Amino acid sequence: MAWDFETDAEYQAKLDWADTFVRDEVEPLDHIWEHQQFVPLDGARRKAIDPLKDQVRKQGLWATHLGPELGGQGYGALELALLNEILGRSSWAPIVFGCQAPDTGNAEIIAHYGTEAQKERYLQPLLNGELFSTYSMTEPQAGADPAQFTTRAVKDGDHWIIDGWKYFSSNARTASFLIVMAVTNPDVSVYKGMSMFLVPADTPGIDIVRNVGLYGEAMNDGTHALIHYDGVRVPEEAMLGGEGQAFAVAQTRLGGGRIHHAMRTIGLAQKALDMMCERALSRETSGSRLADKQFVQGYIADSYAQLAQFRLFVLHTAWKIDKYNDYKKVRKDIATAKVIMPTVLHDIAWRAMQVHGALGVTNELPLFQMIHGAAVMGLADGPTEVHKTTVAKQVLRDYKPNDDLWPSEWIPKKQEAAKAKFAEYLELEVGNL
Amino acid sequence: MAWDFETDAEYQAKLDWADTFVRDEVEPLDHIWEHQQFVPLDGARRKAIDPLKDQVRKQGLWATHLGPELGGQGYGALELALLNEILGRSSWAPIVFGCQAPDTGNAEIIAHYGTEAQKERYLQPLLNGELFSTYSMTEPQAGADPAQFTTRAVKDGDHWIIDGWKYFSSNARTASFLIVMAVTNPDVSVYKGMSMFLVPADTPGIDIVRNVGLYGEAMNDGTHALIHYDGVRVPEEAMLGGEGQAFAVAQTRLGGGRIHHAMRTIGLAQKALDMMCERALSRETSGSRLADKQFVQGYIADSYAQLAQFRLFVLHTAWKIDKYNDYKKVRKDIATAKVIMPTVLHDIAWRAMQVHGALGVTNELPLFQMIHGAAVMGLADGPTEVHKTTVAKQVLRDYKPNDDLWPSEWIPKKQEAAKAKFAEYLELEVGNL
Amino acid sequence: MAWDFETDAEYQAKLDWADTFVRDEVEPLDHIWEHQQFVPLDGARRKAIDPLKDQVRKQGLWATHLGPELGGQGYGALELALLNEILGRSSWAPIVFGCQAPDTGNAEIIAHYGTEAQKERYLQPLLNGELFSTYSMTEPQAGADPAQFTTRAVKDGDHWIIDGWKYFSSNARTASFLIVMAVTNPDVSVYKGMSMFLVPADTPGIDIVRNVGLYGEAMNDGTHALIHYDGVRVPEEAMLGGEGQAFAVAQTRLGGGRIHHAMRTIGLAQKALDMMCERALSRETSGSRLADKQFVQGYIADSYAQLAQFRLFVLHTAWKIDKYNDYKKVRKDIATAKVIMPTVLHDIAWRAMQVHGALGVTNELPLFQMIHGAAVMGLADGPTEVHKTTVAKQVLRDYKPNDDLWPSEWIPKKQEAAKAKFAEYLELEVGNL
Amino acid sequence: MAWDFETDAEYQAKLDWADTFVRDEVEPLDHIWEHQQFVPLDGARRKAIDPLKDQVRKQGLWATHLGPELGGQGYGALELALLNEILGRSSWAPIVFGCQAPDTGNAEIIAHYGTEAQKERYLQPLLNGELFSTYSMTEPQAGADPAQFTTRAVKDGDHWIIDGWKYFSSNARTASFLIVMAVTNPDVSVYKGMSMFLVPADTPGIDIVRNVGLYGEAMNDGTHALIHYDGVRVPEEAMLGGEGQAFAVAQTRLGGGRIHHAMRTIGLAQKALDMMCERALSRETSGSRLADKQFVQGYIADSYAQLAQFRLFVLHTAWKIDKYNDYKKVRKDIATAKVIMPTVLHDIAWRAMQVHGALGVTNELPLFQMIHGAAVMGLADGPTEVHKTTVAKQVLRDYKPNDDLWPSEWIPKKQEAAKAKFAEYLELEVGNL
Repeated sequence: MAWDFETDAEYQAKLDWADTFVRDEVEPLDHIWEHQQFVPLDGARRKAIDPLKDQVRKQGLWATHLGPELGGQGYGALELALLNEILGRSSWAPIVFGCQAPDTGNAEIIAHYGTEAQKERYLQPLLNGELFSTYSMTEPQAGADPAQFTTRAVKDGDHWIIDGWKYFSSNARTASFLIVMAVTNPDVSVYKGMSMFLVPADTPGIDIVRNVGLYGEAMNDGTHALIHYDGVRVPEEAMLGGEGQAFAVAQTRLGGGRIHHAMRTIGLAQKALDMMCERALSRETSGSRLADKQFVQGYIADSYAQLAQFRLFVLHTAWKIDKYNDYKKVRKDIATAKVIMPTVLHDIAWRAMQVHGALGVTNELPLFQMIHGAAVMGLADGPTEVHKTTVAKQVLRDYKPNDDLWPSEWIPKKQEAAKAKFAEYLELEVGNL
Repeated sequence: MAWDFETDAEYQAKLDWADTFVRDEVEPLDHIWEHQQFVPLDGARRKAIDPLKDQVRKQGLWATHLGPELGGQGYGALELALLNEILGRSSWAPIVFGCQAPDTGNAEIIAHYGTEAQKERYLQPLLNGELFSTYSMTEPQAGADPAQFTTRAVKDGDHWIIDGWKYFSSNARTASFLIVMAVTNPDVSVYKGMSMFLVPADTPGIDIVRNVGLYGEAMNDGTHALIHYDGVRVPEEAMLGGEGQAFAVAQTRLGGGRIHHAMRTIGLAQKALDMMCERALSRETSGSRLADKQFVQGYIADSYAQLAQFRLFVLHTAWKIDKYNDYKKVRKDIATAKVIMPTVLHDIAWRAMQVHGALGVTNELPLFQMIHGAAVMGLADGPTEVHKTTVAKQVLRDYKPNDDLWPSEWIPKKQEAAKAKFAEYLELEVGNL
Repeated sequence: MAWDFETDAEYQAKLDWADTFVRDEVEPLDHIWEHQQFVPLDGARRKAIDPLKDQVRKQGLWATHLGPELGGQGYGALELALLNEILGRSSWAPIVFGCQAPDTGNAEIIAHYGTEAQKERYLQPLLNGELFSTYSMTEPQAGADPAQFTTRAVKDGDHWIIDGWKYFSSNARTASFLIVMAVTNPDVSVYKGMSMFLVPADTPGIDIVRNVGLYGEAMNDGTHALIHYDGVRVPEEAMLGGEGQAFAVAQTRLGGGRIHHAMRTIGLAQKALDMMCERALSRETSGSRLADKQFVQGYIADSYAQLAQFRLFVLHTAWKIDKYNDYKKVRKDIATAKVIMPTVLHDIAWRAMQVHGALGVTNELPLFQMIHGAAVMGLADGPTEVHKTTVAKQVLRDYKPNDDLWPSEWIPKKQEAAKAKFAEYLELEVGNL
Repeated sequence: MAWDFETDAEYQAKLDWADTFVRDEVEPLDHIWEHQQFVPLDGARRKAIDPLKDQVRKQGLWATHLGPELGGQGYGALELALLNEILGRSSWAPIVFGCQAPDTGNAEIIAHYGTEAQKERYLQPLLNGELFSTYSMTEPQAGADPAQFTTRAVKDGDHWIIDGWKYFSSNARTASFLIVMAVTNPDVSVYKGMSMFLVPADTPGIDIVRNVGLYGEAMNDGTHALIHYDGVRVPEEAMLGGEGQAFAVAQTRLGGGRIHHAMRTIGLAQKALDMMCERALSRETSGSRLADKQFVQGYIADSYAQLAQFRLFVLHTAWKIDKYNDYKKVRKDIATAKVIMPTVLHDIAWRAMQVHGALGVTNELPLFQMIHGAAVMGLADGPTEVHKTTVAKQVLRDYKPNDDLWPSEWIPKKQEAAKAKFAEYLELEVGNL
């Protein structure tokens, strides 16, 4: 039998190293330099972090998903999935392992479509985490539906002039450049009429109107910018890929990352389950440990069941990505993973919170941040509702309508067919039916 | 990477054969000889079914889970799981493939513990499906807790006399013998004081008080007997295993079967999903196909997500059973599968029913029978609540209590540790924190 | 304060009488004459049931929802709701209390729209439960969407000839007449092109193709007929209401009955909760009563919470029906009740089943029949999904779109407004914000 | 019929006034003086807020739940519930309406048990919102189980010396005094061995170790203190009520407040539903309004159903509180309201968040704060799990165990009884059964 649910020993050793390394060396960064992952390294952080990156490189775990030409290992989706499960526990880990979004995706875009000058200026520093970038696509009036995007780029001689509003442009306030999607031809379908531009952050006309904060951050001091592009003038070479090619360019970027979130989510959910179990064993109330109470046992059992199932599903999806290398063949499973992901994290973190009592709702445990993270997961990469529709459509591709009034499994018809099939035997037992 | 989610080509070919064979040749039996699987074959049914068994044997798929000495293939849990997924669609399929419960388990008991005479009389006919048997353990006052069993066997010279009541003794009305668990020593724990007996069905004193029917069957015309053992006298050799060994003997029997139900459930749930999809594509209302309505899309997406995850989980459990051959190492996952199983079948069948409108609640589709089956799955092999408790206890074995007042992940403590760890760098950025 | 959650003493006394009467005198009928409520009374049943009806009449509880001209009490929806909660426990109770569907609704139609001859022949016997009737509307290809109905009635001189198929026509096999909805003008909207006909059951051409059974009933021996109307010829007077008035006529019928199901469901769900509680107190396992186990406590608490809330909601809806006497003002709440109803019954009955162990899935307790009933409730009067859509549309009528890019509750805008409002005070605390 | 679901016109007019007043005058306070409700009024806030309080007093809505001797209206629970539904929308509203927890409860304690000096110093200023107070009961090692409280008060001459730790002591950092529960007799049950003390905030030995923040607040800058009482010395008169009377004293305080949270939650949930509906009508994606998509319609319908049911349930509970004035008679319903409350708010706010897309997870809408509030509701007043246990125990008080092996509703027994009852009629139809 070909089925195998184990990682080979060599890679498992690397994962074990990563697990210890993240716990001991990387997670502490979250506690002192929170929200500073995308601030270019200053003296102190550089001294702390550069040696960590070196260790990762030495282990051959740097940017594993990128090809060797970009300094990576060319590993497949499955290896990356297993690694991301570990990285998911720490917000600094992607930086330390050279795989932080959106920079790694933006680097792929530049590598594919950038001019030599752009590559020279941005590519290596971006990969190294020396500078950061923004992916500026979503607009305030249109989250999940690009057909409603209105930001325009108009040709003016050998320049383009970009006008419009973008929303949720992450890390814009510390980015060196922004990759901006804009309508260049409003007369055709948006999927053919949008183009992609690389815009240096110091280009005049880029107005960060608000640095929108997530819940839990300070007002107007977050990392998700509302940007007004107000007559932003860029040269022709700023266009990445051809005119009208924005979505083809975007695909480059999404390639590797589709299930990263899912595996990171698994790492977080596992942490929540670990916390729930420790608490259940450590705390007594009304005469017995929490671990001895059925409500808590139910929380643990349900959480384990959800998480173990989801983990196998995501690994299976990663395996299919590697096997088929064809998005059409894995689209159903990628969308399914996105449907499941927020619920798994939400449910487990919520139960863990409940088991921790009042402490659970404070800022002294990471649980409510996970719950917020679950909400973000349910929206950031398209809302869950859209993914559900995608799953259904993909599932339905394997079925055909039945023109008969009654379904194929209608029993009266089945009975009749069965009787006809076994007629000769049935005659033997007249009166038996 | 060792991970592999595929069946090797040779066994896959056998599964493909089984799939077609069950659909074309076995499912029709359900429509003409419902509820007669455990009635010894008469002329008509023998003529229909013997050739089917022969085909299964020729394909090497007869009793795959049994060793060659019992006429089987000695296949592992994973092969059996993949096969059971197919057999689950038909109530006759286990008979045709030589793996029907409880007979196959009872055969294992006789093979291990039976006398020569018992083997001669029962073993081969039982394996062949020529005669049937009952496993008589549960009592009316005590479903899931053997500590409350009261049926007694008392020594009387070289005989034992059995007195008591048993409930839900399946197929008793057509069985040739019953395997009965009875207290032989009431002074010790039930786990040491119960013994197992093989009792021929024609022994005086076996009073089938009611043939309890499941919902949907006729009153007092079901297959689950309430039996009064009223002074039933059996010779010493009737005892299977030693005195007080009932649970050790029972283990023999449960070995192979622990995840059969789960895989059969997957087969049924897949059928329900298939029906849902066909219907969604075939039916229009309020101006569009059901397939185009978000509620229905949600049903399909949620069903696919539940089923695909559960299937991988059960296959992973089967793989662990084969790998470790140690019940202690798979107990958590087996119990988890039992927790999940009823919900998966219930939810998918219920949604399929809803999509079929009024037809869904009739007896002309198999959907409500599946929903009832889901309820049976949630009770038959111990109630879901008990399995949840088991899962929690097993999960908790991997954790330790924390003696500190605050949990390990308490952020103030983590922060302090992180600050100490990075103290030298932090000094560089005085005022930054 | 006007709020009051109590029944006045006089009517409460009647309800108390009904409660005892149904328990002692009516429920036993369910156990001996199951499925015979709509079979015209023979000698034995007449002897048993006529005196019961007389007692109900004497208490002034006969057909309470009908006006005195139809032999009723002219009570409002709230009184009826409170009574139906009691009647819901027994399938014979509506017959004994003169309010069984569909007859009572059909009687209202005849009273409004029937000819003198029709009234004379059918009205009083129908109200008395001496003869029964069918409401024949749904078609096999179109459950919830009348726009897809195809059964036609074509004028032929002073007769109409009806051709088509109807599905789920309850009690057709024992009915004296059928009320049939048919397209008389295919060129206009179905809501203006359908008419209603009263068709005596012995009219040639009425072909009951199958008496479809619900799950749990015998094949082709149920009470929901699939009928082929094959050239059924009726005189002009058979048309009830004017040509194209089918939906206006149908409204008459639905008037009183919209929340009957809901209150009967509450009666059933209460019975399931009662059973759950008795069992929890009566059964021990693993060293304590079921009542002492948190899983069971959770089932009881959740069930009580669901049921108590739903009951108040339905009574509130009944109160609004009486207060406004305007369907438009209660449509939202009626649809909401239909959305909630199946889930309440399903959940409570399922938990009760689970608490009863194996006994719960047999035909020896009424629990699985309730679960099936919940499924029927979710489809019979339109599928839950359609009711959800109705609720949403009604809720949304109270809101207006906001033309601004940001919602009214967008905090930055609110903050700005607040700052403007309190500007003079804020100046006092410069530096404080 | 006595049932009535309406507020009388006079009080409704007051509610209407309050609704407008809160929206226009009070909600803006939340946007400029967030988290400052319990900071004694400085010049600016006093100028803004004192006139608002005056308006409330003029309307007769100040401290409605308190008796006239405390400056209130002596209104019942139902009036307060209806008012709280409005106040729940704003975190400043309780201050402006004179009913903020914990001060109003602490005032009741002082009024009942305080010395003249204590009353003089604290009572009126507390009621007026001129000073604030803390209720210091929960301990870090024991949230929901007082039996594990260890904070001790030991007699030393005519003083008591308090030593121990308290957790989640709200507003301690701005409080003028703390009401502290401490063990005075460790040799008896905690319910008889704890006493209550009024401790001025400036008493030496009160060490606020951390001002624990909720998620979303800054580290160590919240309002829920972890306090070390380190040899805190208070005179005999500091004891409120008699020695060992802590729980009797606490009851005073909990009296009015038990369903405040529930009604405020309803106000918040209604706001979330309002936001969801506005958004659904205002936003288009993929060719239609969100309001036209079934997923969104389902969210609206489910939210309306949950909220409308819960609201009636809480009002019914308030009505029972007023009617019986006996905690034992309403304990079941109060606990039920607490079970339901967090889920209603969570579910509705979560759906509203989802409908708002990325904006929903930011700090620019109040939705995630509501979700966090739902979590707090599920823990603050005892965890949901404990309330479920309470509900179950209370529900079970109305039932008795059944000594028979089979339940009362066991059909075979019922059938037998019915047959006996109708024996004479059944003889008439021999062969019919």
